Order: sequence, then C-alpha cells, then structure tokens
Amino acid sequence: MLSNKNSLGLERIAMRMKYIFGIDIGGTNIKHGLFTGEGELLEKWESPTRLKDDGKYILDDISETITQKIEDLCIDIKDVIGVGLGVPGPVGEDGTVYKCVNTGWGVFNVEDELQQKIGIKVKAENDANIATLGEMWKGGGIGFKNIVMITIGTGIGGGVVVGGRILPGNKGVVGEIGHMQVKEDETRKCSCGRFGCLQQYASAKGIVSLADDILQENKNNSVLRNVSNLDAKIIYDAAKSGDKLAGEIIDEASQLLGKALAQTACILTPEMFVIGGGMSNAGDVLVELAEKHYNTYAFHASKGVKFALAKLGNDAGIYGAAKLFIR
Amino acid sequence: MLSNKNSLGLERIAMRMKYIFGIDIGGTNIKHGLFTGEGELLEKWESPTRLKDDGKYILDDISETITQKIEDLCIDIKDVIGVGLGVPGPVGEDGTVYKCVNTGWGVFNVEDELQQKIGIKVKAENDANIATLGEMWKGGGIGFKNIVMITIGTGIGGGVVVGGRILPGNKGVVGEIGHMQVKEDETRKCSCGRFGCLQQYASAKGIVSLADDILQENKNNSVLRNVSNLDAKIIYDAAKSGDKLAGEIIDEASQLLGKALAQTACILTPEMFVIGGGMSNAGDVLVELAEKHYNTYAFHASKGVKFALAKLGNDAGIYGAAKLFIR
Repeated sequence: MLSNKNSLGLERIAMRMKYIFGIDIGGTNIKHGLFTGEGELLEKWESPTRLKDDGKYILDDISETITQKIEDLCIDIKDVIGVGLGVPGPVGEDGTVYKCVNTGWGVFNVEDELQQKIGIKVKAENDANIATLGEMWKGGGIGFKNIVMITIGTGIGGGVVVGGRILPGNKGVVGEIGHMQVKEDETRKCSCGRFGCLQQYASAKGIVSLADDILQENKNNSVLRNVSNLDAKIIYDAAKSGDKLAGEIIDEASQLLGKALAQTACILTPEMFVIGGGMSNAGDVLVELAEKHYNTYAFHASKGVKFALAKLGNDAGIYGAAKLFIR
Repeated sequence: MLSNKNSLGLERIAMRMKYIFGIDIGGTNIKHGLFTGEGELLEKWESPTRLKDDGKYILDDISETITQKIEDLCIDIKDVIGVGLGVPGPVGEDGTVYKCVNTGWGVFNVEDELQQKIGIKVKAENDANIATLGEMWKGGGIGFKNIVMITIGTGIGGGVVVGGRILPGNKGVVGEIGHMQVKEDETRKCSCGRFGCLQQYASAKGIVSLADDILQENKNNSVLRNVSNLDAKIIYDAAKSGDKLAGEIIDEASQLLGKALAQTACILTPEMFVIGGGMSNAGDVLVELAEKHYNTYAFHASKGVKFALAKLGNDAGIYGAAKLFIR
C-alpha cells in the first residue's frame, strides 16, 4: 500500500516506473490491483459490480476508477502498460465476450470497448483462467508452466495454463471441469440443464445435497443429523472431528472430483492440479483425497501429477490479469 | 512423384529449392515423405519397421533411407530444412520419448539421437498429434486452427491442435480420447488396465464385443447372427442395409463416442472434430451419428462444433510431420 504520493513520484522519475492494472470482475464486487511493470502489487481495492440495466455501467465504473487512480498517483498515462481484465464468463481470443450471465452482458468485444473508454491497451480473459495464471505465477503453482486449476465454490470452475499461457478454447470454453459428467444415473438437473455434472456433488452446494442423500440412505449415527442448516464447512469439520458418515460424504465428493480430473488428464495431463475457491479452506484433506482418487482413476501415463492448494485466495484474479502484460 | 532426376536438379538450381522429410513410424511400416520447403509432397515411400532388439535399428534405417534419397536426388544437405518425425508413443516437448511399446523403445531423446546420425534438424511428435496437424493443414480440417482428431482403428487415439500448433501435454499425454471412461459398470478390463474406456466399445475391436453383448441380450433377428467372424465393416454394412439390430449397435457405439467428445469439449472445445482411422471408411454415417450424440451430451456453450471425416488416410502423418517445419 502506498502511503506517500510524493515518494512514489520521485521513484517513478528515477526509475521510469511502469504500471499495470489487474482487474477481476465478480458478480458482486470488482477487484482492482495496481502493479508495477515487473508485477509487484502496489495497491488493491474493491468496488461494487453495478448489475443494473444488464451491467451497462460496469465498464464506465472501471474506466472511472482507473482514471481516478492515475490522477491520484500523478501517473503519466503513457507509463501504464495495460489493463488486464477477468470476466466471469467465456471470452474469445480476440476479446469477444460470449454472453456473461453474471454481469448481464450479451456478445460484444470487451477489450475494444474498455480500450476506447480509457485509451490504454486492454486484454481480457475468463476469470477462472486468469486465476489459474495468477496461481501459476505467484501462488500454488509456482515453478510450473502447465497447470489445471479447479475453483470450488458455490459452483466449480476451472482454468488451463499450458506453457505458461492461458489455453484458448473455441468460444472461450475451456476447463469446464464442474460440468464433466461423473454419474450416469442422476435424475436431478444441474444448473446447466444436464445430469450428473461434478458440480452437483463436489461444489459447496453440491456436497450438501450429496450429504442429504447419504444421510437418508445410510441410517448410522452422525453429528450432521442434529444440524438444521448443513453447509460444506460443517460437513468438513465433522469429518475432521472423526464423524464417520461425514468422512464418507467428503470421500465420495472427492472420489467424483478425482474421477473428473482423471478424465481431464486423458485430454491434457498437466504438471500440477491446483485446487482453489472457498472450498479450499477445507485444507490439505481436500487435496489429499482428490489426489488419492485421481491416481485410482487415472490413465497409467497420467498418474503422479502433483496436487496443491491455491495460495492467493481472492487475489489470484488480479495477479493473473496483470500477468497478461508480463512475459 | 518425380520421374526425372535432371528436371528436378535444374529446377532446384533455378529456385534454390528447399526440402523437408516427413516421417511417420508405425508398428509395421515407416512412411516417408519428401516435401518441398513450401509443403508440396514430391515423393512418398514405405519401409518395414525393424522391431528386433527393442527397435534399436529403427533410427539407423531412417537415417539410411534419408541419406540414400538425398544422394539419389543429388540434394545438397544444406537445402534440407528438417526431418519431422511421428512416433507411436508419448513424446515430450523436448523430443523425449516416454517409452514406446509399439517400437520397443524406452525413455530417450529421439530428436537428439536422429539428429546426430543425419546432421539435419529433427522435430518429433506423437503420431496421433502429427496426423491431427496434417489433417488441419491439408485434410478434413482445412480452414481451422483448433481441432481435435479422433483416430478410430483397432484402438482409439486422438490429437489436439490449438492455434495451429500441436498441444503439448505433460509427459506427452494429450488427446487420449480412447481412454475416456464412458461406462460405470464395466467388468471387463481395457488394455490399459482400467474399466469402461471408450476404446472398449467404439474401436474396430470394441464394436465387435459390443455387438456380441447386444446380440446376446436382444433376441431379435439380425443378419449378424449368421456371421461367424464379425468385424466392424460387416456391422456397418449390415446397418446401412437396414438391419435394425446392427443399427442399434452402431448407434450405441456412436453414443459413447459422442459422450466422450462432449467430456473432451468441457476441457477444451475445438472448432472441429475430425474423425479418422480405418473405421472412418464407414463414411458419413459415423460422423452424423457422432455429431448427433455429441450435441445431446454437450455443455450448452460447446454445442455446434463442426464434425468432418479425415481426408488424408495414411498420409496424414507424413504431412503433419513435414508441417512441423512450416510456419
């Protein structure tokens, strides 16, 4: 955090300091980071995501925040290398957003539009992909260039980095690990309209409905039976405290996660799987179980991939967005 | 095919013609192609793959063939840009072969070793990947830069090209679509040691055992009941002639193929799926059924990917190998 405007000014003159903005648009808040050209985080802040009128004010808000920051810190706009942008929806290689339910956006080129507003080069990517890039660069995946990240929160997202760069998918579809189908006999629909997606069992929401099922089928004792509002944390905590049935629930969720990752590795074996998102607060147990089940399901040549927890938390996105401008 | 050595010589002097060798090592034969520096196929020929002593003579044989061809055509070795090589096993980005069962090879750097023997730059890739590159360049995938190819023969292989380049996988594992697990309740082992792999149902061998199962379970009439040695062609021909049960067999195989491709597209949606290998002789019906079932299973944003038959047959590998040296 910068406390003194003048000292920054002097330093800039002496070193011709360059800047990058790393911005991560979420459904509730927009995270902003100001980085040096070398990728050191100088300052970060948040602003609300204005969803009104199909999100039409979001880019104006970002533009205003950037302009304000440049003014406050007396930065010469020529010293800003670029603005990296994470979007919570599919983004094509040319910056086209292919609809973004989370912001209300339709199909348009977000790079061109923001660039026109601020007069600074913009690069945009899907938010799960920039988080993956951020974790590779400064987080759980340090030292690797080929990683797949699984973000487990309310839903399950994923990103793929190959050779140190985000893997582009046609129409921006890449790393949709939450929608790998892992159960054949599911009768309940996933939010995507299909049946048996990983997200239905291993996300924070999914593990609760998995628990409901198991608590009904299995009549053994469990502390979970006394809880009126189950959530993922309660299930993990119970398992850690030795509750057998809770242990079975997290084991089944992890088994389905391991299965989906083994299928993923048939298409593209990474050096490392990084597990992030709110659920990663469960800690090492999540990684250990996922790794164990992955190796049971994996194709022989894909066995032995490393597993790690994400380390940057909510900052992964702004780091990854900044990295879009750093070689 | 060149008929006249002298005319080639004159042309070379006039145009400073450059050459590329594209070589595809198979389990039985090695396919060789001599290309111009621009990628025009001048000549192709085959030689047997000497599997004796764990394949230790294979690179010597290739080296001899190349040297002989250079001598026969009076080519200056300086005019040979490179030798592209397809290997029937996993190949890392640096040219390391990670064991190759089909040739008997262990782990070693095939690029370095062949390069030392012939004094020409060598680039090696997995054979399914170079076939994919070849089909993108001159075959079924012309006009696209992001394709996934599925090669259906005795087994099922696959390759992935993103942005016009072969996607590298850790330890060379990429596009193993034949080992995507598509059935949960399988009790028979796949050749890989796992259960329920696509290859067990949709390969030339797999569809025969699928047919055996269906002919046992379903008691309806079928011309297939009178055949003592079923093979994939007989099954497809019967289906095309209107045999209902044969139709159900190829529909089930295609359904499992469509399911595996839908899972593939969650990880990485291509612009086009190209279907090749011996089974692709079944023609349009294979592509149409695969496409229909793919769209049933696919994640909404992945629907509508194009499907096409491969066009280069056995030459896909030599084309792709040559393409390794053409931007």
